[in-house]
Order: sequence, then structure tokens, then C-alpha cells
Amino acid sequence: MIDTLAVVGATGAVGRIIVSLLLERQFPARRIKLLASPRSAGRPMEVAGARLEVEVLRPESFEGVDIAIGSTPDEVAAEFVPWAVERGCIVVDESAFYRMRADVPLVIPEVNADAIDSHRGIIASPNCSTTQLVMVMKPLHDAARVRRVIVSTYQAVSGAGLSASLEMEQATAAWLAGTPETKAIFPHPIAANLIPQIGSARPGGSTSEEMKMVLETRKILGDDSIGVNATCIRVPVANCHSESILIETERKLSAADARRLLEAMPGVVVIDDLEAKLYPMPRECSGRDEVFVGRIREDASSPCGISLWCVSDNLRKGAATNAVQIAEHLARRAAAGRGAVPA
Amino acid sequence: MIDTLAVVGATGAVGRIIVSLLLERQFPARRIKLLASPRSAGRPMEVAGARLEVEVLRPESFEGVDIAIGSTPDEVAAEFVPWAVERGCIVVDESAFYRMRADVPLVIPEVNADAIDSHRGIIASPNCSTTQLVMVMKPLHDAARVRRVIVSTYQAVSGAGLSASLEMEQATAAWLAGTPETKAIFPHPIAANLIPQIGSARPGGSTSEEMKMVLETRKILGDDSIGVNATCIRVPVANCHSESILIETERKLSAADARRLLEAMPGVVVIDDLEAKLYPMPRECSGRDEVFVGRIREDASSPCGISLWCVSDNLRKGAATNAVQIAEHLARRAAAGRGAVPA
Repeated sequence: MIDTLAVVGATGAVGRIIVSLLLERQFPARRIKLLASPRSAGRPMEVAGARLEVEVLRPESFEGVDIAIGSTPDEVAAEFVPWAVERGCIVVDESAFYRMRADVPLVIPEVNADAIDSHRGIIASPNCSTTQLVMVMKPLHDAARVRRVIVSTYQAVSGAGLSASLEMEQATAAWLAGTPETKAIFPHPIAANLIPQIGSARPGGSTSEEMKMVLETRKILGDDSIGVNATCIRVPVANCHSESILIETERKLSAADARRLLEAMPGVVVIDDLEAKLYPMPRECSGRDEVFVGRIREDASSPCGISLWCVSDNLRKGAATNAVQIAEHLARRAAAGRGAVPA
Repeated sequence: MIDTLAVVGATGAVGRIIVSLLLERQFPARRIKLLASPRSAGRPMEVAGARLEVEVLRPESFEGVDIAIGSTPDEVAAEFVPWAVERGCIVVDESAFYRMRADVPLVIPEVNADAIDSHRGIIASPNCSTTQLVMVMKPLHDAARVRRVIVSTYQAVSGAGLSASLEMEQATAAWLAGTPETKAIFPHPIAANLIPQIGSARPGGSTSEEMKMVLETRKILGDDSIGVNATCIRVPVANCHSESILIETERKLSAADARRLLEAMPGVVVIDDLEAKLYPMPRECSGRDEVFVGRIREDASSPCGISLWCVSDNLRKGAATNAVQIAEHLARRAAAGRGAVPA
């Protein structure tokens, strides 16, 4: 049992889920403290029937806090994380700001929980589209060494925040009615459309979202020789990111091998019976904490390739659930006297 | 100028576009005859302000018809095409029924118009998702020899017919309102969802749509050694199929090379400026006859790979436009006295 855990950005789309997960999973902390920007703080927040106070985020917020989970934009993380670390608080950060720093472990607990021990105050949680990809790569990598992965994403609007979800609903209603559509969050109409850009332009023609998938995948698996080709597309789906993935391995895996390995992977659920029209779909996987996989088949265009279809709730395993799992590891380490949490 | 051209399945989603294209492009036929099933025939059809009579499809319909363009389900094509061919009519068929027959050329006029001459009464038009893929592969294949292509599709509901489009609109309205959604055409909810199955299950875990992309691509390019990995996904978009494509070539092409080759390809339009947020999107490409390409970039995960994003109106270049182009070739050959049309 730790003393205090803080949630930074508690009122956001992911923050709300973090809070409900902490309550639901009975996180071993005496106190949970909710922090948000002055714009959102002050109003009480209703979670699972409980009314919780939200305090304004400031440097002193972290006095006496053992662990903080942050779900904020990068620029907010850049500011608050040092406030917390200076006060001896360990931060599990959802933002992209610290992920690629050499002294910050980037962690998916089912994949590289051991990396948690090497932290120096900050542990980063990966990008949503990376997490579900690496969750399916991991067991195949361990069994047959992944050499290359080619992934095309189908990313839900919820990844762009609560206002993006609202924009999709309003734009879709307007599209159906043939009236003008609001467009504030997305650069192009999102109703019944596809936007082949997530994030900003990067040298070489990729987007920042695609580069996150390349760099974070290699860091989490600890293998910079893995080739990653990513194409990230925004689709008019409310929640859950989906991915069409082709994994090339050094040693041949049959579809049956891959299915068996994935079924044995903690946190992964295989739904795979094409004849019976069974495979994961975003509407069914929304609200679930696992990564779902189907359409597992051998690639006829390469000697050692496995194709599959992967769906996961980007707000949960792609964000909130993963961060809470990391915090649970930290709390367990503290309870075991491994000193991960200051006394 | 030929005497009579018939459109079979004239009242369907693609049939209506075929008729309007024939009028718009002033197809060189003295008479255009519209044919449909007894269920649809009898009622006059309004196209571009003109009222046209639709006759019931029967064997005698093809007496005196030079060219027929068919857009019907496979089982209808299986029946009517022999009626036409026996009467000396050349059939341009949109269905999948004859595509893979050795004595039937499978044609995209910009890619393999020469194959038209080898016909023995039937010329097949490819599957919509194949046509746009091969249109972008062709110039890269000619320049650097394509060895493998990996494609993930984002396919619009219009590909499943007029009633599928209606189902998406009704289901989306119901989804927004939180009321029960109709589900007759699609096996799963289509509103704000993704369905990773188009067509039926095939041995090896692929779908029939995916196998069409594999086999038709090789046949059109005349190269069975090209590896094709296809994943076909239905998305909640009204019209236009989109594809995330990775093309591996024998000789290295830079992104600039690929862009230049694609810009020079007839029927292809390049929209590619990520900094300016310019790339093809389905809502903008709907109603257009070309194949649109953007996000052209080099693949960092292989020595000779080009990634790109391709959007095309599946009812037009993916179906109606391509068939009309083939019929125009036939009419030109007849005018040039090459005997492609019986005297």
C-alpha cells in the first residue's frame, strides 16, 4: 500500500478512464488525488457514482505524492513532470514527450516489465497504435525473431480527445442531413471520410504518428534492427484503433503456430473464425482492456510472414489501462521493499 | 459508329453510371439498349434528363447488338453472356464470373489494352479494388519491375450495391440516435465500425475479395511471379475505395522517381503535399474517373520499396468507367476495320 497516487489530466478522455480503473481495480493507495488545468479543476468529477474533487495542477501538488499517472498534452507533461520528479514522485507519463529519452523506460507490462526497474523517476507509456502492435509482435518475436513489420492503421476519433468525438458525431449528423459540417479538430471532414494524416509531416514523407510507431516499437522490443513500415489513417469510428499487420520473421511460423503463440500471450484475445464470420471489430472491442486479434494467416508473398487484424480500445490498453498496469507494478515493487517508491 | 450497344443491369448502382457515361462521352453507337431483370425492367429510367426505356433481359435481347456491357451478379452473367456471344455480340463483363478464364482477357485500358484483341467474345473488367491497385503498380512495374505488393484496403459500402448504401445511411442515423440498427446486407453493424471480411472465406484464411486482388493483379500484369498480400476491410465510407499500398521493386526507385512515373501515367492523378495537408480522400474523389495517389514515400524497412495511399471511385474507374473505356476501344477497332465487331 502506497500513500498517495495522483492522476494528472484527470478530466480528459483518458484521465476519466484512469480514475475509474483505479477504483475498479482497487489500486493499493491510501489516497487518490486528481489534478487538472485551472480550466477543468474546481468542479467535482463523478466517477462510478463517487464525487471526487479535482485540484489545480501546480508544483506543490506533488508534495507527498508517491506515484503520478499523467495523461496530458506533450507541453503540459514537459512542465509538470519535473515538478513531480523533484519532489521524489515517480511519474508514469502517457505523453510522447519523454518516450524516446534514453533514461526513460518505455513500458508495456506484458512485454518489458523488467525495464520498469531502470527508471530514474519517469516511466513512459507508449503511443496507443504502438502498444497494440507490439503486444502481437512480442510472442512471435520471442518464438521466431521479427525482422520486419508492415502496418496500416484504422484509427478511431477518440484518440484525438473528447472534442474530436463530439465533432465526429455532429459532422456525421450534418452529413446525413446534408447541412454544413463543423470542422475544428480535424483538418478535413471526418464524417464518412478517411484522413491519411495523423500528426504532423516529418522528413521523408512520414507523419509524426507513423514515426512513433517505428521508433517506439524498436525501443520497447530492444531491437533497432527491426524494420517498421507504418501508414496511419483516421477513420470515422468512435473508439478502438484497428490495424492490418504483416509480420515477417526469421524462422517460419505457420498460422497455427502464430495462433497458439498469440493465445498464450497475456492481455491478448484471439477471435478468429472467418467461416463463422468471427473476428475483432471496433464496436465490439470498445470498453475492453485486452488486445484482440483475428484473420491470422500465412503470407503467400514471402517465405516467413504472418498477416493478421488487430483491434484494441485506444483509450484503455492503448493508454489508461497500460499506465495503470505500470503503476500497479510500481506499487507491488514498493510493497516488496524494492525501493521503487521513496519511503 | 456501331449500330447497337446494350447495357445489362442498367438499373443498378454501376449500370446507371455506365448509361450516364455513354451519354456524356457520346459513345459512337446509333442505339443504346437498356436491359434489366423483370423486377427492374418496364419502368422508364431517367438519366441526365432523358427518359430511357428498360427492356427485360432475355436471349433474344442480343439480336443485332454489337457490344454489350454487363454489370450484374456473377450468376446472372453466367446465364446472359452465352446468349449474347452466340448471337455475335461482344460482351464487356463487370462480374467476376469469367475473369480468370484463360480465353478471356482481363483489361484495364491504360495497362493492357493490347489484350483486347485476343478476345473470343468476352472481355472482363477487373474487381474494383484490383483496378486502382494495378493502375499505380503499372508505371513502377515498367520502370523497376514489381516483385511484391502489400495492400490493405479501406472499401466503401457502395461496392456492395444501392441497398448497402441505404443500409449505411439508416444504420448511421440509428447509431447516432441510439436506436436499433438495420442489418440486412452486411453481416455486422456498419455504422462507425470496420468489418474485416469482404466476400467469402477461402482456404488459407483469405477472403474471396483478397484472392481476387492476388490473382487478377498477376493476370493483368502478365506476371505470375509477383507476390501479392491483400487485406480487405469494409469501412463506413459511402463511396470510393482507398488503399494503403507498399510496392517492392527489383530496382530501387526514389520517392521522386515514383512520383514522376505516376504523374506520367494516364488516368492517374497525384495529390501529394503532406506539409500542406494535401492527399486524396474518398469524399473528394467521389464522382471522378481517375485514380488518385498521395503519401508517396520510400520504405525504410526494405531496400527497394515505395509506400503510397490510393483513392478511386469504385463505381467509376473501379467499374463503370473501365468497362466503358473497353467498349470505346472495341468501337474504335470496329471503325478502323479490325473486325473486332461483326459486320
